[in-house]
Amino acid sequence: MPALMAPSELAQRVLAGDRAALARAITLAQDGGESGRGLIRELYPSTGRANVIGVTGPPGAGKSTLIGALIARRREAGSTVGVLSVDPTSPFSGGAVLGDRVRLAEHFLDPGVFIRSMASRGALGGLAAAALGALLLMDAAGFDVIFLETVGVGQAEIDVVDHVDAVLLVLVPGSGDAVQALKAGVMEIPDVIAINKADHPLARVTLREVRGVLALAPPGSVEIPALLTDALGGEGVAELDTALEAHRARLDAQGALAARRRRNLRNEVLAQAAARWRADLEERLRGDAGFEALLDEVAARRLDPLSAAERISGQRDGA
Amino acid sequence: MPALMAPSELAQRVLAGDRAALARAITLAQDGGESGRGLIRELYPSTGRANVIGVTGPPGAGKSTLIGALIARRREAGSTVGVLSVDPTSPFSGGAVLGDRVRLAEHFLDPGVFIRSMASRGALGGLAAAALGALLLMDAAGFDVIFLETVGVGQAEIDVVDHVDAVLLVLVPGSGDAVQALKAGVMEIPDVIAINKADHPLARVTLREVRGVLALAPPGSVEIPALLTDALGGEGVAELDTALEAHRARLDAQGALAARRRRNLRNEVLAQAAARWRADLEERLRGDAGFEALLDEVAARRLDPLSAAERISGQRDGA
Repeated sequence: MPALMAPSELAQRVLAGDRAALARAITLAQDGGESGRGLIRELYPSTGRANVIGVTGPPGAGKSTLIGALIARRREAGSTVGVLSVDPTSPFSGGAVLGDRVRLAEHFLDPGVFIRSMASRGALGGLAAAALGALLLMDAAGFDVIFLETVGVGQAEIDVVDHVDAVLLVLVPGSGDAVQALKAGVMEIPDVIAINKADHPLARVTLREVRGVLALAPPGSVEIPALLTDALGGEGVAELDTALEAHRARLDAQGALAARRRRNLRNEVLAQAAARWRADLEERLRGDAGFEALLDEVAARRLDPLSAAERISGQRDGA
Repeated sequence: MPALMAPSELAQRVLAGDRAALARAITLAQDGGESGRGLIRELYPSTGRANVIGVTGPPGAGKSTLIGALIARRREAGSTVGVLSVDPTSPFSGGAVLGDRVRLAEHFLDPGVFIRSMASRGALGGLAAAALGALLLMDAAGFDVIFLETVGVGQAEIDVVDHVDAVLLVLVPGSGDAVQALKAGVMEIPDVIAINKADHPLARVTLREVRGVLALAPPGSVEIPALLTDALGGEGVAELDTALEAHRARLDAQGALAARRRRNLRNEVLAQAAARWRADLEERLRGDAGFEALLDEVAARRLDPLSAAERISGQRDGA
């Protein structure tokens, strides 16, 4: 029975690419408990081989359909593919319209493709930790490419992008808002940009706008390719795939991949440490009379919340 | 000169409703430094009077236009109104299409309306702290109603909703995705739902779907009103305003407002404490040889990131 399986046996099965074991391992990691952490400790030395590509952009941009088209290409080339979706509006994560589901069905049935979704809420140990764990486990299970699909607007989703080797930003034609956000630097700087739904009347205008924003980059910056795609008709998908491969090859050639991964690891370690500290704190303060007294002061407007937070962060034993 | 102004003089001017002083105070609070914190400490006893309404929903749902329509009604009723926008696609926060800007212009010029926007990135002390500070300052400056506009998809945006007395969720007709997300509990449970763009052919279908989801609530739950609005034509705006007033009146009558605010304060204090702890940690670890050695272990795949985080969160002095 699953509950009796020793982590090391589960780890062996994950390493062997057993899908049921991988699914169970991700659930354990998502629960945030010791057995999930033990599993990741055990498997971490076997990670680092997968090429992790973050796919981000506003809801409705067609991220899932584009990922589906890229999966088809990578599968033809003989690679295995994992998908981790943390976008609540994605067909991968369950918010599907029927048409999307049907289109994705071939990938759901393909043994060389593993798809997992994760709700923004409900990951007990925090979304970032759960996503990181799932990516590491898919990596250990031997998937060559892993797509991490996120919505390109919340801070949490941007943080998730710290886990990846490349960021693909998918935009919708005519969305001046997205271009503005890109300009304002709100969206994490992408490595490749796809303007999806190439047959949209505003597709070329949007492409020009995006290239205009990119042209504002300081001289000597790495050039960010922006191209038109039509995930359904297939237009531009080969070019997009090539751009992603070229980005990866450039990182490899310059030794930049190691630097990027180290920066990512630094952010991950700090974020996880803060998340753990907060979880410990909440546990410690549950029912703590001193903390309740402190909250009474805040509620009575005698002590402001920032000062109360300072007191707590200064002395871990609470109020 | 502003730099020489003592916080207490600035605090007096904020209390007097001086707009320039309020704008400067919010900037100080956003910087996350001691002078901003001192100002909030000073003004916190004068807060708690404003009715803070969170307005959330996917990009393009028309949140800003609906807020504009609600502002007009509240102004007619003699109330002063503050708006804090943390939605990167909002016309309030700069991602404007020309038409939206023109429609909002009357409010920008109205001395009884104060509008401030905040990018998701760039708030040095963290977005949640900056938003909380800005809300408290607007409250101290005497605004009767404050609208907090956020995108209803990232975790960070959901957290911001912890600052409010009521959550208004704005949906677009035909967005089955949003309804799915609501069903999955991914979006924070709203207090009032507006399906905006009432003239859309799918408006009534979406209304039925939303009411279907709401009907799944356990018996005895507070009823959540869902209604059709057309922010531009004005349809449903009066009914929406009435629903928001009724929600506030119910909270007041049941003493539930105090309970909700205490829950919010608890979350805010914990979140701020964790954010401060992380900021302190990053400061402490900058250039720390032990931490760099720890990252070397992680980069070499000898130590997994979760274990590294545990070590750091266990002992504040670093690696």
